[in-house]
Amino acid sequence: MKVLVLGGSGFIGSALVGGLLNQGHQVRVFDRNIEAVRQQFPDINDVVQADFVDVMSLTEAMSGVDIVFHLISTSVPATSNKNPVHDIESNLVNTVKLLELMRNADVKRIVYLSSGGTVYGTPKSLPITENHSTNPTCSYGIVKLAIEKYLLMYAELYQLDATILRPSNPYGPGQTHKGVQGFIGTCIDKINDGQPITVWGDGSVVRDYVYIDDVVSACLATMKGQQRGPLNISSGVGYSLNQIINMIEKYKGEEVEVVYQSKRSFDIPEVILDNQLAKKSLGWVPQTPIERGLNLTLQHGLK
Amino acid sequence: MKVLVLGGSGFIGSALVGGLLNQGHQVRVFDRNIEAVRQQFPDINDVVQADFVDVMSLTEAMSGVDIVFHLISTSVPATSNKNPVHDIESNLVNTVKLLELMRNADVKRIVYLSSGGTVYGTPKSLPITENHSTNPTCSYGIVKLAIEKYLLMYAELYQLDATILRPSNPYGPGQTHKGVQGFIGTCIDKINDGQPITVWGDGSVVRDYVYIDDVVSACLATMKGQQRGPLNISSGVGYSLNQIINMIEKYKGEEVEVVYQSKRSFDIPEVILDNQLAKKSLGWVPQTPIERGLNLTLQHGLK
Repeated sequence: MKVLVLGGSGFIGSALVGGLLNQGHQVRVFDRNIEAVRQQFPDINDVVQADFVDVMSLTEAMSGVDIVFHLISTSVPATSNKNPVHDIESNLVNTVKLLELMRNADVKRIVYLSSGGTVYGTPKSLPITENHSTNPTCSYGIVKLAIEKYLLMYAELYQLDATILRPSNPYGPGQTHKGVQGFIGTCIDKINDGQPITVWGDGSVVRDYVYIDDVVSACLATMKGQQRGPLNISSGVGYSLNQIINMIEKYKGEEVEVVYQSKRSFDIPEVILDNQLAKKSLGWVPQTPIERGLNLTLQHGLK
Repeated sequence: MKVLVLGGSGFIGSALVGGLLNQGHQVRVFDRNIEAVRQQFPDINDVVQADFVDVMSLTEAMSGVDIVFHLISTSVPATSNKNPVHDIESNLVNTVKLLELMRNADVKRIVYLSSGGTVYGTPKSLPITENHSTNPTCSYGIVKLAIEKYLLMYAELYQLDATILRPSNPYGPGQTHKGVQGFIGTCIDKINDGQPITVWGDGSVVRDYVYIDDVVSACLATMKGQQRGPLNISSGVGYSLNQIINMIEKYKGEEVEVVYQSKRSFDIPEVILDNQLAKKSLGWVPQTPIERGLNLTLQHGLK
């Protein structure tokens, strides 16, 4: 298949591009940062260097495409509340423009990576299933949710074949984005820089960490048939920040320095996502327990 | 209380202004169309004629206000899908700007009129309770839903005292907006103009019509204490378009001309909203059965 990956230079994006190439798909990457893509995949020559707001480039990128993977986000949970208007304008408006453009270009398939970590808000029950209430405590989550709603509306009204995935907390080799998203990646950066790890709160915050290869295999599984979702893509198991730190210490054989700071208002105490629906719908199973995934990540990331 | 009504010239807005004045509140009206407000309420002199996008005027309008009723919508369900980007930019972005502005002005209370008729999408069960899934089939509903999510987020993070009401299909005297919204109002306009009534589909579409006075009494009930919602504001009873037409014919004592046109993709077959939660939370009861409400409306509206 001819696949357009929007946001192919990011952590999930570049892993997905690798997975698609391995399966023999023709991959076109649309990203602001094409240099990173070229470095990782020297053989790719079908690239579009452009901003998501650039409708003209997006239109050109759509030519001949069978399926679009939409992984672009201009915001992250931790900072999205500082400027929700920008969040709406850059992510939601541009995604609706993308959907209109796909309608015009008759591109029928899209897979969207939403956010299992933010769309539900404070859990009323654990593990969280897909029909749990959705009251995000950050703009990032609200915008992702609104995008989901437009995808489902376009699916119903215009026969768009849309699949929505809600990954929990993806981690793995390559996630070293200097602390904006992803606790494990941030830990590695801090240790490499000789800095203490910052923990907001007392470290009891529990997250459902899903290994990058398992996220990619879920994305690839969506290409086999029609699934609409939303589908939680998760390990289904929760670990506290302190447990992660302990595992890192075990790997290193020494203590790591941690600074505990006061908790942030938008941090949810515990998120564990039920992944039964994804297993059933996609015939997908996450293969990587945290110990193995974390060791592979540390092996790759620690200097 | 000093009350700011955003969108005070509309059907619900003007009825609400009347209700607030009757209860002795100080009312400030913010609307593009102040002439209509002046005609209906000659004694009101606290008016701001401005567009919702005009943040400066909105900031000034906020001065000294205890509670904001937000009834502005720049779109209607039937046409919102023609330009979802405009829908997002004019309604969602401006409402988030409003919330930021309220934070800065330390105005703590807001009542938002969402849409019980569109936020749920195609019902999975009837009557629809507030925890029914929300998959709107029009941009209007998605935007209303996203606004609800921002209100709940601001409530949680910034102690905004927000109440969300989801009226079903309000009707009553004064709803004669030339066919953009409200079947009963449209019927009256058509009959007065000597035109046939247009019905999309076979007339079996069922809606939950709630009389305007009952919507206003629900709005006024929110002022007594803190309710967050969302709360369905409805009669809890459904009537088909054909039943409404029959009731109009009964009132008139003669047949009315109806033209049946093919159904529209975004029209949901049946919407009936459960109003138990609003009754319990607000101590509110809708008082007007359809026969009485419809007769009052026809009496007022028919030439």
